[in-house]
Amino acid sequence: MKKSALQKARANYQPKLPIVLTGAVKAVEGKPTTSVADQDEIKKLFPNTYGLPELKFEKNPNPGPGKPLNVGVILSGGQAPGGHNVICGLFDGIKKIHRDSRLFGFIMGPGGFVDHKYIELTAPIINEYRNTGGFDIIGSGRTKLEKKEQFDKGLEILKELDIKALVIIGGDDSNTNAAILAEYYKEINAGVQVIGCPKTIDGDLKNDLIETSFGFDTATKVYSEVIGNIERDCNSAKKYWHFIKLMGRSASHIALECGLQTQPNVCIISEEVEAKNMTLQDVVDNIANVVARRAEDGNNFGTVLIPEGLIEFIPAVKKLIAELNDFLAANAAEFAAVAPAQQRTFIIEHLSKENAEVYASLPEGVARQLTLDRDPHGNVQVSLIETEKLLSEMVGKRLAKMKEEGKYNGKFSALHHFFGYEGRCADPSNFDADYCYALGYNAAQLINSGVTGYMSSVRNLVKPSVQWIAGGIPITMMMNMERRNGELKPVIQKALVDLNGRPFKKFAEMRDNWALNTCYVYPGPIQYFGPAEVCDQPSITLQYEHSAK
Amino acid sequence: MKKSALQKARANYQPKLPIVLTGAVKAVEGKPTTSVADQDEIKKLFPNTYGLPELKFEKNPNPGPGKPLNVGVILSGGQAPGGHNVICGLFDGIKKIHRDSRLFGFIMGPGGFVDHKYIELTAPIINEYRNTGGFDIIGSGRTKLEKKEQFDKGLEILKELDIKALVIIGGDDSNTNAAILAEYYKEINAGVQVIGCPKTIDGDLKNDLIETSFGFDTATKVYSEVIGNIERDCNSAKKYWHFIKLMGRSASHIALECGLQTQPNVCIISEEVEAKNMTLQDVVDNIANVVARRAEDGNNFGTVLIPEGLIEFIPAVKKLIAELNDFLAANAAEFAAVAPAQQRTFIIEHLSKENAEVYASLPEGVARQLTLDRDPHGNVQVSLIETEKLLSEMVGKRLAKMKEEGKYNGKFSALHHFFGYEGRCADPSNFDADYCYALGYNAAQLINSGVTGYMSSVRNLVKPSVQWIAGGIPITMMMNMERRNGELKPVIQKALVDLNGRPFKKFAEMRDNWALNTCYVYPGPIQYFGPAEVCDQPSITLQYEHSAK
Repeated sequence: MKKSALQKARANYQPKLPIVLTGAVKAVEGKPTTSVADQDEIKKLFPNTYGLPELKFEKNPNPGPGKPLNVGVILSGGQAPGGHNVICGLFDGIKKIHRDSRLFGFIMGPGGFVDHKYIELTAPIINEYRNTGGFDIIGSGRTKLEKKEQFDKGLEILKELDIKALVIIGGDDSNTNAAILAEYYKEINAGVQVIGCPKTIDGDLKNDLIETSFGFDTATKVYSEVIGNIERDCNSAKKYWHFIKLMGRSASHIALECGLQTQPNVCIISEEVEAKNMTLQDVVDNIANVVARRAEDGNNFGTVLIPEGLIEFIPAVKKLIAELNDFLAANAAEFAAVAPAQQRTFIIEHLSKENAEVYASLPEGVARQLTLDRDPHGNVQVSLIETEKLLSEMVGKRLAKMKEEGKYNGKFSALHHFFGYEGRCADPSNFDADYCYALGYNAAQLINSGVTGYMSSVRNLVKPSVQWIAGGIPITMMMNMERRNGELKPVIQKALVDLNGRPFKKFAEMRDNWALNTCYVYPGPIQYFGPAEVCDQPSITLQYEHSAK
Repeated sequence: MKKSALQKARANYQPKLPIVLTGAVKAVEGKPTTSVADQDEIKKLFPNTYGLPELKFEKNPNPGPGKPLNVGVILSGGQAPGGHNVICGLFDGIKKIHRDSRLFGFIMGPGGFVDHKYIELTAPIINEYRNTGGFDIIGSGRTKLEKKEQFDKGLEILKELDIKALVIIGGDDSNTNAAILAEYYKEINAGVQVIGCPKTIDGDLKNDLIETSFGFDTATKVYSEVIGNIERDCNSAKKYWHFIKLMGRSASHIALECGLQTQPNVCIISEEVEAKNMTLQDVVDNIANVVARRAEDGNNFGTVLIPEGLIEFIPAVKKLIAELNDFLAANAAEFAAVAPAQQRTFIIEHLSKENAEVYASLPEGVARQLTLDRDPHGNVQVSLIETEKLLSEMVGKRLAKMKEEGKYNGKFSALHHFFGYEGRCADPSNFDADYCYALGYNAAQLINSGVTGYMSSVRNLVKPSVQWIAGGIPITMMMNMERRNGELKPVIQKALVDLNGRPFKKFAEMRDNWALNTCYVYPGPIQYFGPAEVCDQPSITLQYEHSAK
């Protein structure tokens, strides 16, 4: 593997551990916990792992001798910067407990666990991946670990390798399944602990004790770098409106953080669109009004940030998609027989009046995407919809109408961008490098404490990393019951953007100024070697949420 | 203007000047020059500025007293990282010569010069923009400065402000026009010198004495950062082929440099496609073969770099576009009357057999783009063609056929990216920050030497910046005669990728290995504060071209 100059230099970075984890620790129990909602149901489903106490690590002045630990690790779901450092921290943590400890990595995600594909992660391998981006050390996958047969099959290889603990690095779904697996192994006395680690660039796996998921910091910094560069281009050429879609399927944390970093003219927050029951046309009109107001000042340029999940948060579109899914599933053959040129009319004639109107208002291309590009279950593939083009096309039409009415007299020329894959595997920022390493190292301590069904929790994150607090929280504490594919299931509650939280409120205070005046901020690329105020700042979201409350 | 932490820290960076420019200099004349071709014609067109000698600055132990210089500056054409530092260097250079020197910036490019829109660039303004990306200090524009009336109109404001020299920062076209302007002002004894500076991220303005244009280094580093991140994602998820189009309209220097930096599976070089007289299908087949060979090893993922200008370098497509332009210009009304569903057939029936076949082979969407999206002159807007989608669609079809024939048995799922605006206004790398500052500072010395029609030349660029050589070369030296809009015109010869040059040859040696094996390199983001081997490396293209010959 040929390495870049930066990779070579960065390999020597020593992540800064919370001071408490630099020596032997003891787990101090806090009070028993309850789930965030539906306590009775969750308790019934997790009789062995519900209600456990929060844990906090403290220095242990009289540690006993350590025992070797054999541990397995799985990367689950989409990539996030810092995953390698979780594994490196875990490795160093179990080796510190006992030099004969061993770490096994399952290949290409949960599928490797079920299919018994693994490698032993030895020091030479680990050292190749310190402080690097990507999940390529063992690969990741999207197989859902949720069936008893999978659990039993996986247990065989754990027994074979004498693995006493499994660490699952994943998002809300993967950690939900980690909790179910922990409960099952406890129930059957399998003798295997299960520990989760909070991963996702989307930033929607968080609460009071999990202040942020790892990868969010780095990914949003990469996106903010390129958004800032585009803003500077925009403000130099002064002739384009840039419509920039940002990854982050459900929640708009990424768009909000990038908005706070770069101060664009418009930043849409899906949660607000839903809360205000806005239509697609409302969203379009809002953008068009900003374009028109800027044009009055002679500024025929701007930037618009769009969260990937927007379209599903617009109540009217959500209803339309639901009816379309049902209608097309029930009338697949009939629809397939309709000539392409007639399909739109056919759909409009068969939908309810309300949804037919919404459908008719969509541009041709998007309307086609809604009926043609369907996943294997027959559902619309919303992620394939190019929302950035949809919005700019509709804004263009709206502006043409405003021009006829004498309400707009500018030029509107749009360019489109989508950022996602650019940030998921970036080299972790100092924050994520430290945070991930601490999460992994801390997971080793949780294993050593004998607990199961816990998530590694490192907090106090707006402080310097040596002051961070380390411990664990029962995963069941984060759960509630939600309907999934028609069934009520216990799941970790997703953290959407809180419209009463400080990050959104701060944004809402400033955005009118950003819209009309050009207030762009250019964060530039992530720096690893410079002054602390450049290299070590956590995300603005985290700073607003946790400092100066 | 709210500044990011990096901007604040970076403002203090002091660009490193070539040692010769740190004191008083004298211009030493080399031998007289000739144009690269068409010497008689160029000499006739530039009777006052042709054949001037190369200049090289040397230390001047006995400098006379400096005189105040009033200088005007214009940013012309697309943005490139470091433009602000050229202006800062120019400012510091003329101030060093005499503290009463003044700098005036014309607003939004050559248009501001003609329309008399300007600001005086004083120290407080200059200091706000040191080491920053963008052209927003005075803006840029694409007005072509080529008519006598424009020259005369501009001269009025130069006289009014007592400006004795004009610095034009631009690409090949803008510097061509700078030479014409220099010749004209000399001819009419206007008393105004004109100096050019070599700007363009495309890297196609270079020769022995202009080793690279500024901005190329930074822009390719930004693109390589995100390409590397995508490659790491690609190699972690192992399920997508990423088709990445890169800005750089004509030449493929950007694709080649990014290829050398990141070692993708496929990197297309337009100049090679043209030289080998390849068809679009040849290009597609080459990619499909790499996809199939990787699939045999179980690797259903990869990355493909595509230069923006590719489509125009494919001889067959170039011919098709030429005939389409002529045909549609001559038959606009008739074509407009054809129903959309019949347009494709209509075109095929009316083109020559050879071009009709090429047209018929194109996917529907691209065929439509070729006939519908036309610029005000009636020409196809080639830059709007989504080559990355065109290629992946055709590769998909080819693979389907290979599957039928039993020659391919993999999965092919493609994702698309286009990078351009992300890099044009990035904060300049240390290389570009130094190079641009030196170009501007050096331009001040050229002005002080009394010359006109010269381009600022700073060379020996693979050495540390203190060892760089500073001087000037007559712009006419870079010219030849080319047909533009039907007329033979004197223009600076574009430097396309040299298929016999070391950068391409090195790439060609390694690419088969990159195709089959996964050899990705992850350069990471530009660093400003770290070790020299991370922060101060010039582009690989420059290193191959000028070191260890």
